[in-house]
Amino acid sequence: MSYKIDNLQYCNWSKEIFEINNKANLDAVHATICYHEDFDELKINIEKWEEYFRDYSSLIFQGFNSRDIEKAKQENKTAIFFGLQNCSPIEDNIEYVERLKNLGVLFMQLTYNNQSLLATGCYEKRDTGITRMGREVIKEMNRVKMIIDMSHSAEFSTLEAIEISEKPIVISHANPLFWHKGLRNKSDVVLKALNDSGGMIGFSLYPHHLKNSSECTLISFCEMIAETTKRISIKQIGIGSDLCIRHPDSIVEWMRNGTWTKTKDFGEGNASNAGFPPQPNWFEDARGFINLEKGLKDVGFSEEETHDILGNNWYNFYQKFD
Amino acid sequence: MSYKIDNLQYCNWSKEIFEINNKANLDAVHATICYHEDFDELKINIEKWEEYFRDYSSLIFQGFNSRDIEKAKQENKTAIFFGLQNCSPIEDNIEYVERLKNLGVLFMQLTYNNQSLLATGCYEKRDTGITRMGREVIKEMNRVKMIIDMSHSAEFSTLEAIEISEKPIVISHANPLFWHKGLRNKSDVVLKALNDSGGMIGFSLYPHHLKNSSECTLISFCEMIAETTKRISIKQIGIGSDLCIRHPDSIVEWMRNGTWTKTKDFGEGNASNAGFPPQPNWFEDARGFINLEKGLKDVGFSEEETHDILGNNWYNFYQKFD
Repeated sequence: MSYKIDNLQYCNWSKEIFEINNKANLDAVHATICYHEDFDELKINIEKWEEYFRDYSSLIFQGFNSRDIEKAKQENKTAIFFGLQNCSPIEDNIEYVERLKNLGVLFMQLTYNNQSLLATGCYEKRDTGITRMGREVIKEMNRVKMIIDMSHSAEFSTLEAIEISEKPIVISHANPLFWHKGLRNKSDVVLKALNDSGGMIGFSLYPHHLKNSSECTLISFCEMIAETTKRISIKQIGIGSDLCIRHPDSIVEWMRNGTWTKTKDFGEGNASNAGFPPQPNWFEDARGFINLEKGLKDVGFSEEETHDILGNNWYNFYQKFD
Repeated sequence: MSYKIDNLQYCNWSKEIFEINNKANLDAVHATICYHEDFDELKINIEKWEEYFRDYSSLIFQGFNSRDIEKAKQENKTAIFFGLQNCSPIEDNIEYVERLKNLGVLFMQLTYNNQSLLATGCYEKRDTGITRMGREVIKEMNRVKMIIDMSHSAEFSTLEAIEISEKPIVISHANPLFWHKGLRNKSDVVLKALNDSGGMIGFSLYPHHLKNSSECTLISFCEMIAETTKRISIKQIGIGSDLCIRHPDSIVEWMRNGTWTKTKDFGEGNASNAGFPPQPNWFEDARGFINLEKGLKDVGFSEEETHDILGNNWYNFYQKFD
């Protein structure tokens, strides 16, 4: 049995997106449901998702554990797993971790670019590592089986999270620094620590994380994956496409600026390239998984290895949190 | 004209407390109205204060600027200035800074012991300094004339706040480290930076900040003040007593633990000394200002210098934010 999993999308959700994911044979998608929202605002987002699950029940349903990935495969649907790109919904209250898990939140980033109450984001000048509250929250996430995601965190914070957490953590969506010096791509040190601790990295298809941005070639991307397997086990890699399609550019501006600044921050972009960059033509949406399958085989991955990378590794990882 | 100002109290507010402050001839008190509250919770605290102002209008009124200190003196009342010991009420929204100023909040600490979204607290292992959001919030506090208070912040964060802020900042309640190695007393480096930037320090009468704790003598305290004037101008020191009287011990537990941990943190205390420590017998409440006046003169301060320390310096400082 092989599964296809995209372990990070933040699309402008609609019937069209769910149909695309379905045509791409995605059995599971880790969907971002928060960037800056607090607890009550997140509940509103979840209510919206309840509408999606009701209105598009022939395409999607909410996933809670690995059995839902199996069920999705059987029913030819996509299981949607909730994840937060920020810890803002727990506010300053550790009790909210369990409440969020009970609402189906499986992934939580400890930071989104900036310093949070828990850890340091990848855009800060200095990195404290995990804070006093962060240590407590990691224990609590371990206890309730919520997965720690450090995609947008600074390096020392990431290494400390790996060290402190009793369960493996993930980088759900980023690429290695050795391939492209993206502002939040990950160093060999992080890849090694992930490898040694049983963690996972999901490769990103977001142009700011790609060599040559929107012009990145499929072969370059797949060769990067092959090279990465010299640094982290082939059983600990997957895809986290970071697809943000069909959004107006105002959304990426909100993602970057939230309500924390009165000036304008451009994140991975810049003033002359402030919007969402175009996707590479071989991965304009999740149907690009078919191109990835071919590309991975072209650079020498076996049938089994290719399926591991395109979903089976994530499936096995999810099982650890059932 | 001389003013008496206690630039930090967090008492269990009541008619009795306001009468004591009145008998102590306090013209102004900076009252803490927040440790962990978010914006909406803070508004509830402010409503409670509106009741106090109504019920005890012969003793207190809300202060907004230095003219209210003059008015308090004329009317033999105490002007109450609002301050936050944490930035939790601005949540992650920089717009709340101005809203809080409009509600009368004159002081805001950038951190309370732990890492905040703005800076690092004094109990964290490592210190990032001022965060990306912190830099924006300092600019905004400068703009709306809200005073930055770093009493519970880590050292590097404090030095960076002094450097970044275009207006002088305060340590409203702490003592120098050279006298007592309290967990959050301040180094000579901080005193020098405060001195050079026009900032103020308010000396604390909270036993964990005192040499020999509750047994600290008046003479030792006043000699410490004299020694401190070798490090910071005599025009930049005052009193911030940190009086927390009439509270049950459950309050100090809440101050320390809020909702950020499921284990128990003892802050400046410890498991065998977890509650509020008793005040020194010469400063059991604000009426101790009379003892301070005598003690300061006994260690050689002139009449004018004594009045500067007991309130005139704070009055002059408040004027900079009118």
